[in-house]
Amino acid sequence: MSRFLSIKYADLEPYVPGEQPQDQPYIKLNTNENAFPPHPSLSDAVAAEAGKLQLYSDPESRALRQTLADYHQVSPEELIMSNGSDEVLNFAFMAFCDAHTPAVFPDVTYGFYPVFARINQVPFRELPLREDWAVEPRDYFHAAGTIFLANPNAPTGIALTRAQVEEILQMNPYNVVVVDEAYVNFGAKSCVPLIREYDNLLVTRTFSKYASLAGGRLGYGAACPELIADLNAMRNSINPYNVNRMTAAAGISCLKDDAYYQRNCRQIQNIRSWTAGALKELGFTLTDSLGNFLFVRHPRIGGEELYVELKKRGILIRHFRQERIQDYNRISIGTRAQMEKLVNTLKKLLEERA
Amino acid sequence: MSRFLSIKYADLEPYVPGEQPQDQPYIKLNTNENAFPPHPSLSDAVAAEAGKLQLYSDPESRALRQTLADYHQVSPEELIMSNGSDEVLNFAFMAFCDAHTPAVFPDVTYGFYPVFARINQVPFRELPLREDWAVEPRDYFHAAGTIFLANPNAPTGIALTRAQVEEILQMNPYNVVVVDEAYVNFGAKSCVPLIREYDNLLVTRTFSKYASLAGGRLGYGAACPELIADLNAMRNSINPYNVNRMTAAAGISCLKDDAYYQRNCRQIQNIRSWTAGALKELGFTLTDSLGNFLFVRHPRIGGEELYVELKKRGILIRHFRQERIQDYNRISIGTRAQMEKLVNTLKKLLEERA
Repeated sequence: MSRFLSIKYADLEPYVPGEQPQDQPYIKLNTNENAFPPHPSLSDAVAAEAGKLQLYSDPESRALRQTLADYHQVSPEELIMSNGSDEVLNFAFMAFCDAHTPAVFPDVTYGFYPVFARINQVPFRELPLREDWAVEPRDYFHAAGTIFLANPNAPTGIALTRAQVEEILQMNPYNVVVVDEAYVNFGAKSCVPLIREYDNLLVTRTFSKYASLAGGRLGYGAACPELIADLNAMRNSINPYNVNRMTAAAGISCLKDDAYYQRNCRQIQNIRSWTAGALKELGFTLTDSLGNFLFVRHPRIGGEELYVELKKRGILIRHFRQERIQDYNRISIGTRAQMEKLVNTLKKLLEERA
Repeated sequence: MSRFLSIKYADLEPYVPGEQPQDQPYIKLNTNENAFPPHPSLSDAVAAEAGKLQLYSDPESRALRQTLADYHQVSPEELIMSNGSDEVLNFAFMAFCDAHTPAVFPDVTYGFYPVFARINQVPFRELPLREDWAVEPRDYFHAAGTIFLANPNAPTGIALTRAQVEEILQMNPYNVVVVDEAYVNFGAKSCVPLIREYDNLLVTRTFSKYASLAGGRLGYGAACPELIADLNAMRNSINPYNVNRMTAAAGISCLKDDAYYQRNCRQIQNIRSWTAGALKELGFTLTDSLGNFLFVRHPRIGGEELYVELKKRGILIRHFRQERIQDYNRISIGTRAQMEKLVNTLKKLLEERA
């Protein structure tokens, strides 16, 4: 910290992304990346933009928004594109929270929400998940703040039903409800179809997970045109050209090859089922995850210890230093071969300690 | 605006990017894009990333920062990469301005500075340029705020010498001085070599203009490690993966083919000289621009009128609705053929009104 940093950021604790150690090749099951690469046609779509990069990208992302609008059967005015979904989440914290409107979210959820609140100098309230790690919808009725719900939630993987989200929307007519659907494509139900019924609903999405585009950085928000206009006021006050030409082309390519990405998502669900079964046999407890990850605990090994032991053996998983979940770890779903390697490694590890 | 938007943004006036009308093909001389496309090798560099996009980009942009550090003969800890230079400018407004530390910049300069100030809810002071459109360094001594100076300035194109910037730095030991070098590669002197001497200096740069990468969105900041750490605290609290894999690869490609981009910059300077001479012959007054644009006025046509008449004839230039410069227009330097077309069109236009 320099002597020039504004004192308002004295207590800032920036987000810490999942580690990316370079000391050896790891099986990376720590950042919920998709197990499969993008469709081969994406390469041509991106290369075709290379010769035009001297020209600015369209600040309105019109071609991409139109393609995406057709995909979701909404209108382009109901969509805002962003540099990953973190960016549109930050716009929501900016636009819909302030000193009088706190952010409200679960105590165990995406670790970036408290960071967004702090950087935007807005108060936040963390509501405890139930003992079974589910969100209790009633806790969010009349929330007196802007609600942020990852659905499925991370790192638990547990999803609310669409009916439960609707209850929360109906019981918060004066609050914006942000439903963060980063992981929705692995078995949960999207709330995008609800944006025409609820003017207080913002759904955020990302191409990172379901469309193998984590390194391409493309996210979006879907909401009624008025909420989208508010978010665009933020975007156009910070970075109007936030989505570059290559990323926009990559997004259109993903939507065109949707069948490929949906097939991968189904395959990841199958691998998730297989892995969950194998881990249960080894004595692990698991939540019923609908994400491309599992949230697991073993009665005989602490969460941090398991993380350390697997890292020694070349497998990275995600441990969170947070009291309530310190016995747990989040394990991304990789390829079947990677998960077999994981299961065999765990088996040996447990045998050594039997 | 929705009923949910925080009242703190009631007076927001988002930035308005240069228009991109789609009704007909225009000669686009309105957004200071580079007249030349990127080097052909950039396409391969970018396509090589396409198959890896399921993996997150490196949040530290290590490979790119190392290449750039070698290029500038600084260390990677003295650099922060951003999604265009607008993003790092916004980080600077966030980190180094607050209710007690206003932003200070010229009355005629990059139109985004007041927007950044408003979105960050910080006061700002606009200091009038001299009558000859130059920045008067003495006006910035003991500024009691964070100084933002585009150098060369836009839309005037006039640059401060490195000695003048040093004077301002020395006379502001308690203030950060941000030197925005978006247009430095067309004849002005960079202040990057000064970052080791002045811990209050932040230089922002972009690949958009000099390296034909406006549509790729890559900018950066250079400063002492402490200032960079502050900016990273902002970045990691908003969007740690702000630079995607394709853009990072494009940046490395540009630095590798530097000779090509430098040659283009020299050519643009030659075309700028030729255009300036031709416009003077037609009776235009011009500032001594060191940007890839000219700032021009004609005694017989108002600024807005000239803009409208050229647009009718298929040529887009940039008019700013700002009282002090309403007689002026900013004209980007295109290819020699485009500028000949411009000059001929202007010639006819003036003859018609003679």
